[in-house]
Amino acid sequence: MILTLKEIAELVGGSIEGDSSISIQGIGALDSANSSQISYAVNKKYKDSLKKSNAGAFIVNKSLKQFCHRNIVLVENVYLAYSILSQKFKVTQNIQHFQYGHQLSYPDSKVAASSLIGKNVKIGKGSIIGVNCVIEDNVSIGSNSTIEPNVSIQRGSQIGRNCVISPGAVIGSEGFGNARNADKKWSPIAHLGNVLIGNNVSIGANTTIDRGTILDTEIHDGVKIDNLIHIAHNVIIGEDTAIAAKTGIAGTTIIGKRCMIGGAVGIVDHLKITDDVIINATSTVNRDITNPGTYTGFVPLMPHSEWKKVGIWLTKLDKIATFMKIKLKNIR
Amino acid sequence: MILTLKEIAELVGGSIEGDSSISIQGIGALDSANSSQISYAVNKKYKDSLKKSNAGAFIVNKSLKQFCHRNIVLVENVYLAYSILSQKFKVTQNIQHFQYGHQLSYPDSKVAASSLIGKNVKIGKGSIIGVNCVIEDNVSIGSNSTIEPNVSIQRGSQIGRNCVISPGAVIGSEGFGNARNADKKWSPIAHLGNVLIGNNVSIGANTTIDRGTILDTEIHDGVKIDNLIHIAHNVIIGEDTAIAAKTGIAGTTIIGKRCMIGGAVGIVDHLKITDDVIINATSTVNRDITNPGTYTGFVPLMPHSEWKKVGIWLTKLDKIATFMKIKLKNIR
Amino acid sequence: MILTLKEIAELVGGSIEGDSSISIQGIGALDSANSSQISYAVNKKYKDSLKKSNAGAFIVNKSLKQFCHRNIVLVENVYLAYSILSQKFKVTQNIQHFQYGHQLSYPDSKVAASSLIGKNVKIGKGSIIGVNCVIEDNVSIGSNSTIEPNVSIQRGSQIGRNCVISPGAVIGSEGFGNARNADKKWSPIAHLGNVLIGNNVSIGANTTIDRGTILDTEIHDGVKIDNLIHIAHNVIIGEDTAIAAKTGIAGTTIIGKRCMIGGAVGIVDHLKITDDVIINATSTVNRDITNPGTYTGFVPLMPHSEWKKVGIWLTKLDKIATFMKIKLKNIR
Repeated sequence: MILTLKEIAELVGGSIEGDSSISIQGIGALDSANSSQISYAVNKKYKDSLKKSNAGAFIVNKSLKQFCHRNIVLVENVYLAYSILSQKFKVTQNIQHFQYGHQLSYPDSKVAASSLIGKNVKIGKGSIIGVNCVIEDNVSIGSNSTIEPNVSIQRGSQIGRNCVISPGAVIGSEGFGNARNADKKWSPIAHLGNVLIGNNVSIGANTTIDRGTILDTEIHDGVKIDNLIHIAHNVIIGEDTAIAAKTGIAGTTIIGKRCMIGGAVGIVDHLKITDDVIINATSTVNRDITNPGTYTGFVPLMPHSEWKKVGIWLTKLDKIATFMKIKLKNIR
Repeated sequence: MILTLKEIAELVGGSIEGDSSISIQGIGALDSANSSQISYAVNKKYKDSLKKSNAGAFIVNKSLKQFCHRNIVLVENVYLAYSILSQKFKVTQNIQHFQYGHQLSYPDSKVAASSLIGKNVKIGKGSIIGVNCVIEDNVSIGSNSTIEPNVSIQRGSQIGRNCVISPGAVIGSEGFGNARNADKKWSPIAHLGNVLIGNNVSIGANTTIDRGTILDTEIHDGVKIDNLIHIAHNVIIGEDTAIAAKTGIAGTTIIGKRCMIGGAVGIVDHLKITDDVIINATSTVNRDITNPGTYTGFVPLMPHSEWKKVGIWLTKLDKIATFMKIKLKNIR
Repeated sequence: MILTLKEIAELVGGSIEGDSSISIQGIGALDSANSSQISYAVNKKYKDSLKKSNAGAFIVNKSLKQFCHRNIVLVENVYLAYSILSQKFKVTQNIQHFQYGHQLSYPDSKVAASSLIGKNVKIGKGSIIGVNCVIEDNVSIGSNSTIEPNVSIQRGSQIGRNCVISPGAVIGSEGFGNARNADKKWSPIAHLGNVLIGNNVSIGANTTIDRGTILDTEIHDGVKIDNLIHIAHNVIIGEDTAIAAKTGIAGTTIIGKRCMIGGAVGIVDHLKITDDVIINATSTVNRDITNPGTYTGFVPLMPHSEWKKVGIWLTKLDKIATFMKIKLKNIR
């Protein structure tokens, strides 16, 4: 798909400043885009990246125009414009050219006869593709990896050596990103990135790992991921981190090396968690963690009769403090 | 399946007041049942609905008898009787008449050769049924919708136009409802309703949406649902609401329009949440929300050493208040 | 697989005290191992079990040596040694000998033509194996059970009579256990136990139940399990317990009979919960529960503006107590 800047401006309802005839072949991130890609920025946090970016054009609103040194598509709602444009570059998986394992020749590996394999799939020596799996186009699986039954690995996902993917896992699913238009309807972002999984990684049953928006979602070497975990678009998980079941990690959060994250932990988006952090089960992580150590946050279990009494006061702690004339500075 | 009231009374161990010879063809909700259906009520909250209901008969206990103007099956445990009767009306999916996509003709849509399709399945123009899907009897899918690999869509589910259902999702699974008998054994409710999904809806990977008990589970137009979400029987989600990954919504809860519900939120059953509500990630919703706005409730993350100290007091807030002679009325 | 103790010591980097020539055919739990099995203990909590064990040999460190009355493999990191040895006894599912339902003869039951069945699979009278399922070797399913579409039942799982397993569920997946080596890399435990499911059990859509490490994961008669639930290795769930959606139960926890566990509850590992316990939705269970009753623990929902004020004090409860000169003994 190649679009001129003029076509893009018409598509997203924007006006052009600069050369409307240039050809755009994709969407790039500000820091890594090349001159045939368009990039975008939603707020002034990105002003330095805008200034340095090699992108061929930028989608911005008028407040960011001043930081762009090159062709601009000016819009009111940048994120909405990006969502509309992203759909143009979406790659749709062909569903008719899959072949069953028994129709294919992978002499160095074992592919179950019943599994369905797309085009240009690489499967390393000694790897096993289990029963009833779906492996879409351009997936690469390293040597000695095992894919268990009923796994879906979607287009372009890269999986390393000595990995195990348990039944029902989904790798490379569309991320969850939607821009809101003026009518409060959602305009979905097409996720153009992939999922990159390193070596010696295990992924649990029915876990889902979404592809990235523009860049990739990354699971580094030695990471161990349990069942029913959600890893959103553009999350990066550092080497040898282990994550227990039912945890969810929201978009673009970066987790360090050798972390141990307990079960049913909720980690919100756009955070940075440093190396060697332990997070106890069922905690909510809603801020960056810059120091190694063990972290916790949940309500201890009580008999329900007690919880009902405690709960009333739990929502009034600030008022208790005011009443008792306690100030934060007094108790630090 | 048609049963006389006499047969129903024998099945559930009840006694009849009224015409034991009438034919019953199904179970209806009090407010929408017709005269060939039987309905039930478990407590006095439903007395007005009982009085107005057009159902042909009612399963009630003696305390509700007075509100029924027509044929009654009198039992001690209404919910248990309903669970037993519901099994009689359960529709069982035939597993032998599925056909592979390559055996079928859907000239206006693409159906993967490997997918399995039941009887009386409608697939709209331009829709795609991905690889290795199972689409059961009487499912209807509108135009331009995409069903990704390994999805299960169970009998009778209705899906609109321009929808995307991500890999591994399950639509129309049996709801979780069980009546307890006198021996504290569970008697399962057969869920006779369907799942109705509107237009422009997206459903994430490995998300599950249960069918309704008598009425349907409803996902309205424009709703965006992320991965690993559980939507229980008879939940209704209003237009253009977005729900982030790992959230669970328990039975019969109604969520308004344009809500934004964060990841890993737990919403308990039988609640009403109004339009334009934002619920932050990992919160528990255990009460109705009648005003638009942003809501939150979780324990902020602490170093574990601090949490241990805080936790002790967290369970004793009411005792602290008593000791300090703080009364609720003083701090409001 | 048969190994001499000498071979085992070389494999795990240990030294032998005793008869290095004995043959070991498997790994056993201390309390149930026989003389052809090796067992292990990680700390002094197991000293009595070590003394009484009938295992043919023991992997221990020097602090536990004194409690072993028989052949020893002495190592520094017992859990790491066990993880390495466990891989030797892992049974790998052959992926090539599966047969489609239409190739098989189960005259007393219905097996969907498209489902894939391994060797030595028993299916009881009147049972249904739905569309697109994968049933691995040595699985046994009792009479009148229904397996819905896209279910994976892995090697050796045993399922009783009158069970229902909903779409996408995974039974018998590898547990999540990893030993850390000196370089902080993870060495995975091979899970050699099975999953045993009793009669009249229902398992929800996309729920995952992991196999045991050495002994089995057990779901007893009459248990009802909702969607998207994680049940870890070696969990035991007592008769007629019901568990609502999105709950997770960590490894080796034992739950009693007739419990009712709400949705999105997190239960940590190695706990014991007695019979007739009710746990409200979204609570965290981080301690044993020895008395029947209802238990709760979560933060009540607040408008976000209030939560922000409350949250500050929530992390400083101990400091408030100190400032107010409240002592725990005063408020009990």
